[in-house]
Amino acid sequence: MRAQFATVTDPKEAHARCDEARRLGKRVAFVPTMGALHEGHLRLVDAARERGGFVAVSVFVNPTQFAPGEDFSKYPRDLDGDVAALSERGADLVFSPSVQAMYPEGACTQVLVSEITAGLCGAHRPGHFAGVATVVAKLLNIVGPCAAIFGRKDYQQLLVVRRLVADLDMPIEIVGVPTVRDADGLALSSRNAYLSVEERQRALAIPHGLAAAHALYASGERRASEIRAAVAVPVERAADAVDYVGVADPDSLAPILSGEIGDRALVAVAARFGRTRLIDNTVLGEDAPPVRGGS
Amino acid sequence: MRAQFATVTDPKEAHARCDEARRLGKRVAFVPTMGALHEGHLRLVDAARERGGFVAVSVFVNPTQFAPGEDFSKYPRDLDGDVAALSERGADLVFSPSVQAMYPEGACTQVLVSEITAGLCGAHRPGHFAGVATVVAKLLNIVGPCAAIFGRKDYQQLLVVRRLVADLDMPIEIVGVPTVRDADGLALSSRNAYLSVEERQRALAIPHGLAAAHALYASGERRASEIRAAVAVPVERAADAVDYVGVADPDSLAPILSGEIGDRALVAVAARFGRTRLIDNTVLGEDAPPVRGGS
Repeated sequence: MRAQFATVTDPKEAHARCDEARRLGKRVAFVPTMGALHEGHLRLVDAARERGGFVAVSVFVNPTQFAPGEDFSKYPRDLDGDVAALSERGADLVFSPSVQAMYPEGACTQVLVSEITAGLCGAHRPGHFAGVATVVAKLLNIVGPCAAIFGRKDYQQLLVVRRLVADLDMPIEIVGVPTVRDADGLALSSRNAYLSVEERQRALAIPHGLAAAHALYASGERRASEIRAAVAVPVERAADAVDYVGVADPDSLAPILSGEIGDRALVAVAARFGRTRLIDNTVLGEDAPPVRGGS
Repeated sequence: MRAQFATVTDPKEAHARCDEARRLGKRVAFVPTMGALHEGHLRLVDAARERGGFVAVSVFVNPTQFAPGEDFSKYPRDLDGDVAALSERGADLVFSPSVQAMYPEGACTQVLVSEITAGLCGAHRPGHFAGVATVVAKLLNIVGPCAAIFGRKDYQQLLVVRRLVADLDMPIEIVGVPTVRDADGLALSSRNAYLSVEERQRALAIPHGLAAAHALYASGERRASEIRAAVAVPVERAADAVDYVGVADPDSLAPILSGEIGDRALVAVAARFGRTRLIDNTVLGEDAPPVRGGS
C-alpha cells in the first residue's frame, strides 16, 4: 500500500483530497463504480492511471438507479476486498460515501438525459438513467477529474455520460474501455456472482450470439433483421426471459428495425437467467468478436 | 477599459480564459445575466469583485426558460451598452454566447429541481425553472467560479440555484444580493422598460403592498391571511392581472395558507401591468421594507 493511499467517506473530504492533488500539479482521473470489483473495473483503473497522476475511485451502490423491485438491497458489496484490490492496482483515493451523504434530506435535483435513454435499458428500467446521470454528475463535481473512465459493457450508460458531460459543459474527457470477458466469453459483471453453474452455462448464449452477429457481418450481411436474429434466436432459446435484443445506431442509439445497417452498428442484449439480469453488447465494425468462432 | 477586459462568445474560450485566471492564482467570481443591464445587475458585479480577483459576467437571453407565448423574442437586448457598463464597473470577462453555442444539435440533458419549484413562478411558467437550472449548471461549468452572484429579486431562482449547486455537489458559493429599487420603490428589472408611464405608476402597488406587509409584521401581526391581504388587496386593485400573491416559508417555499407565520416569511408577488409581468418579494423578519411608510 502506497503512503498516500486513502479511503474517505465524506464528499467534502474527497473533494479536498482531489483539490490537494491538483495543487500539487497532478491530473486527476476518476473511475466511478458500484463496488464488488472484478478485473473489468481494475482495467478502468489502469486506464485512469494512464491519464492521471492521481486516480480516484468511487465505490457507491447508488439506490436511485435501481427501479422498485430490482436488486439494490442484495447487490453484492465487499468494500474491504475492493479497497485492497484498488490499493494493489495503484489507485490513490477510494471514495465510499453513505447514501445519506450523497442524498441528504431535501435533495430534489435530477439530471435527465432524454432521447438516447428512450430505448434498450432505458425502456426496461424506469428511472434508471435519471439515477445514473444524477449520481455521475454529483461524483464528477465532487472529484473534479480531467478524465473519467467507464466500461463499454454498459454502453448506453457510457453514451448517457458522454451526453450529459457535453450538454452541461463539464470540462472532462470521458473514456470508454473495452469489455473484459472471461475465457468462455461471458462479460465480467458483479452480477455474475448471482448465477448458478447451470445459469452461467446458458448465459454463454449471449457472447456466442454476439459472435455470430460478427461472423454474419464479416460475411457481408447488412440486413438488420438477420443480424438481430443471429443473437435473438440463441438468446431466446437459452434465457429465462429476454428484455431486448436490439440493433441500433452506435452514436444516437436510434433503433435499426429493418433495412440495412451502416458501417457500424450496436448490437445490445439484456436477458435474464434465473433472477439475474445480464447485459452485453458489441459494435459491429468496431469491436472484436466476444468469442472466437461464432455460435 | 482595462487591458485585460475581454468579450468572448465561444464557451471553450470562456472556459480557457477563466482557467488562465485560476492559473494566475485568481479566484473567479461569476454573475450570470440576461443582459439589458441595470444598476441591480451592476451591484451583482460589485459583489463579485468583493469575492474574486477575476469577474466573469455572462450575457445570454436563455430561450429555454421562456414558456411558449412569453417575451423571449422581444426581451430587451443591448450587448454594446452592457459591455460598456461591465467594463466600466470592473468586470474582466463578458461571455455572450449564441443560442447555437449553448444548445448545439443533439443536446438533450436537463437539470430538474423539484419541490421548491412547485409554487410561485414555477406554477405559472411551465418549464421555466428547468430552463434556469439547466443553463445555470452549464454556465457554472463553463466558468468554474468559486462564487456566483444572484439577485434576491428572483428569490425562487436564487433558491433553485442554491438547491442544484448543493444537490449536484458543485463546489461553488452562491451569493444572494438585495433587490435594488428605484427611488419610488419599484424593483429594478429589465422588463420595466416595457411599462408605459401609467402602467409604471400602477405597478408601485407592489412595493407599497410589500411595505404594508412589513408594517403589519412590525405591529405584531403574524396571521398569514392578514399579511397576504395587505399585499393582495392593493395589487389586485392596481394590476391588470395577478399571477400570485404568496406567503411562504423562505427556505422551503412551502406555502403558508393559513395560521401564523414564523420569525421569517417570504411574501412574493407576480402581477401584470399591460403586457408586462413583474415580480417582487420581501422576506419579513429579514429584509428592509421596500418603501418607507407602507401602503
